[in-house]
Amino acid sequence: MALTDADHARLSRLHIDIKDHTANFLGYPVSKDFDYTDLLPFLEFPLNNLGDPFADSTWKVATREFEQEVVAFFADVLRAPKDNWWGYVTNGGTEGNLYGLYLAREMMPKGIVYYSQDTHYSVAKNLHFLGMRSIMIRSQLNGEIDYDDLRAVMHIHRDAPPIIFANIGTTMTEARDDIRRIRAMMDELALSHYYIHADAALCGMICPFIEPRPPFDFADGADSVSISGHKFLGSPIPCGVVIAKKNNVDRISRSISYIGSLDTTITGSRNGFTPLMLWHRIRSLGIDGMRARVDKALATAAYTERRLREIGVEAWRNPDCITVVLPKADATLKEKYQLATANGITHLICLPNVSTEQIDQFINDWQLLSKAEK
Amino acid sequence: MALTDADHARLSRLHIDIKDHTANFLGYPVSKDFDYTDLLPFLEFPLNNLGDPFADSTWKVATREFEQEVVAFFADVLRAPKDNWWGYVTNGGTEGNLYGLYLAREMMPKGIVYYSQDTHYSVAKNLHFLGMRSIMIRSQLNGEIDYDDLRAVMHIHRDAPPIIFANIGTTMTEARDDIRRIRAMMDELALSHYYIHADAALCGMICPFIEPRPPFDFADGADSVSISGHKFLGSPIPCGVVIAKKNNVDRISRSISYIGSLDTTITGSRNGFTPLMLWHRIRSLGIDGMRARVDKALATAAYTERRLREIGVEAWRNPDCITVVLPKADATLKEKYQLATANGITHLICLPNVSTEQIDQFINDWQLLSKAEK
Repeated sequence: MALTDADHARLSRLHIDIKDHTANFLGYPVSKDFDYTDLLPFLEFPLNNLGDPFADSTWKVATREFEQEVVAFFADVLRAPKDNWWGYVTNGGTEGNLYGLYLAREMMPKGIVYYSQDTHYSVAKNLHFLGMRSIMIRSQLNGEIDYDDLRAVMHIHRDAPPIIFANIGTTMTEARDDIRRIRAMMDELALSHYYIHADAALCGMICPFIEPRPPFDFADGADSVSISGHKFLGSPIPCGVVIAKKNNVDRISRSISYIGSLDTTITGSRNGFTPLMLWHRIRSLGIDGMRARVDKALATAAYTERRLREIGVEAWRNPDCITVVLPKADATLKEKYQLATANGITHLICLPNVSTEQIDQFINDWQLLSKAEK
Repeated sequence: MALTDADHARLSRLHIDIKDHTANFLGYPVSKDFDYTDLLPFLEFPLNNLGDPFADSTWKVATREFEQEVVAFFADVLRAPKDNWWGYVTNGGTEGNLYGLYLAREMMPKGIVYYSQDTHYSVAKNLHFLGMRSIMIRSQLNGEIDYDDLRAVMHIHRDAPPIIFANIGTTMTEARDDIRRIRAMMDELALSHYYIHADAALCGMICPFIEPRPPFDFADGADSVSISGHKFLGSPIPCGVVIAKKNNVDRISRSISYIGSLDTTITGSRNGFTPLMLWHRIRSLGIDGMRARVDKALATAAYTERRLREIGVEAWRNPDCITVVLPKADATLKEKYQLATANGITHLICLPNVSTEQIDQFINDWQLLSKAEK
């Protein structure tokens, strides 16, 4: 059975359109400098990493061993406690965040979740889903959580264990909440029972390669971290990794007889192709390759900020960030470069694939449109 | 940047292993007669169908139009009410079930979920996740819900709206709960406010092609239906479709400014490749091709049941089902054919790709092992 000629033609047109749109975008945090050709032969098979990646299963059409290596790599980079970590490859950052919050809820059913105003909209949805009590904390102008407000609110609610949902890179300004500072606050307020989840969707693969290293991971106080694979690393299919402390995960695991596996993941059937992609990316880049991509992205961001300021645009960025924030762009630019806007600002995200030529073109377009308006 | 030779060798070994395991399995409900070669060029791009597939988005590296067609196809096959359906391509049946239960909870916060003993383990996990009150109902010996028990329990709890989680094909015996009969029970008990979700993971693409058609879809009384794409249809990546009544979905939608889209889906970033696969499958098979696959599978199941009985194995199956149930298999067979076992039974699932030769080989192995035991 095959497609008709008309259907093939539709696919060809879609391919052309998407190629075009991929070439132009500057406003979404996804990399496009990847090549997974090596892995295409695996799409012949009904891959499925069902259940816990670290448990045995009767089902063998899977890439569990590779998934284990991917998880171990991330646990290491995120400085998870030795022999006390667990994780799996998710369908994206949101699933990892949902997992972290779920763990926190199970451990602290009476806890209150604190998260800043600049938190991604999916988090409020997750909290509603899980029926968790939560309080939104003010953000600073740069998008980082307002520590004074957090401290004041936690002080009022000292009877409930705090669950911190920390942004390691907010959606709009890539602001990073300082986990070490938040942790110190717990000591100050004599709060011994708390949970910190780090949403490091974009920055989880940036921060480990920055000096000084932003405080965001297990060594800094996180209890779980979620990272997206399709963002800074890049992949054609949304994916991610969530890492948590194993002793916490063990508490919520349930013995499941059907797949002969302790099922600690959210979904049953799980993608077996995305772990291969992450493995391929890790192995082919290596730590040096990853650091080089971060350096390149930061250099492009610095260039972008400088060039925009030169033409009089009030662009700015948070320290060591690849996101350049600027005033809300004209609709033509928004359309052409697929720019996300919110609260009167927009942003360019200088992923490793973004070239200075592309930035120059954007600046040229901006100037042309500014003149046209006058 | 490229892989080392050693890494390439590991991938080659994995490919060989998986090919082998794919050739042999008989115990898991996933088809393997697919070919998506036409679509591989799309894996060059960072595809992402973020947000609602029917809403506009500034992000264009997506396959939303194709996803819309896929959803429309399923809505039609599942006889959803004209102009009152909505849906999206999920990461698998579990996500669709979670969505259906979430919708039910939002509409009936004080509802009680009823589901049979034979329900997939992920459902109890979902219910715990969503914090929903639930009561497990007895199953009949064939795996179908015990209607008398359901009626009795609902009668006791007539003050709470019932939320039915119906299995349209249980995991072990492919038993199908009769939605029309359950609906009639609601009338009998004067329950006007209720919700029925159909978990048609495997059978959603089987039942529409059987005469007489098993009562399982919207026309029979379902309010939402979840189907897996990687099960009967077949795909290398777990996926599925969930369809719900649009007026119900509208109630829980929230306006989200960031992606310029009403976000009614569970995750934010969504796979843009799986909708293309489902579209490809639908277009290349057509309704006739789908019916032919169902006929072939049913014929193989009948053959399997008969052959097993001929050699004295007490095999059986539910009416018009492709799953043949048999006593718990020997460990060697369990390993070789990747058979799932639970409660002292195992099963062979006669998907369209299963050949009578493969069944003959299984029977041969069974006989050899039986003799060896004597």
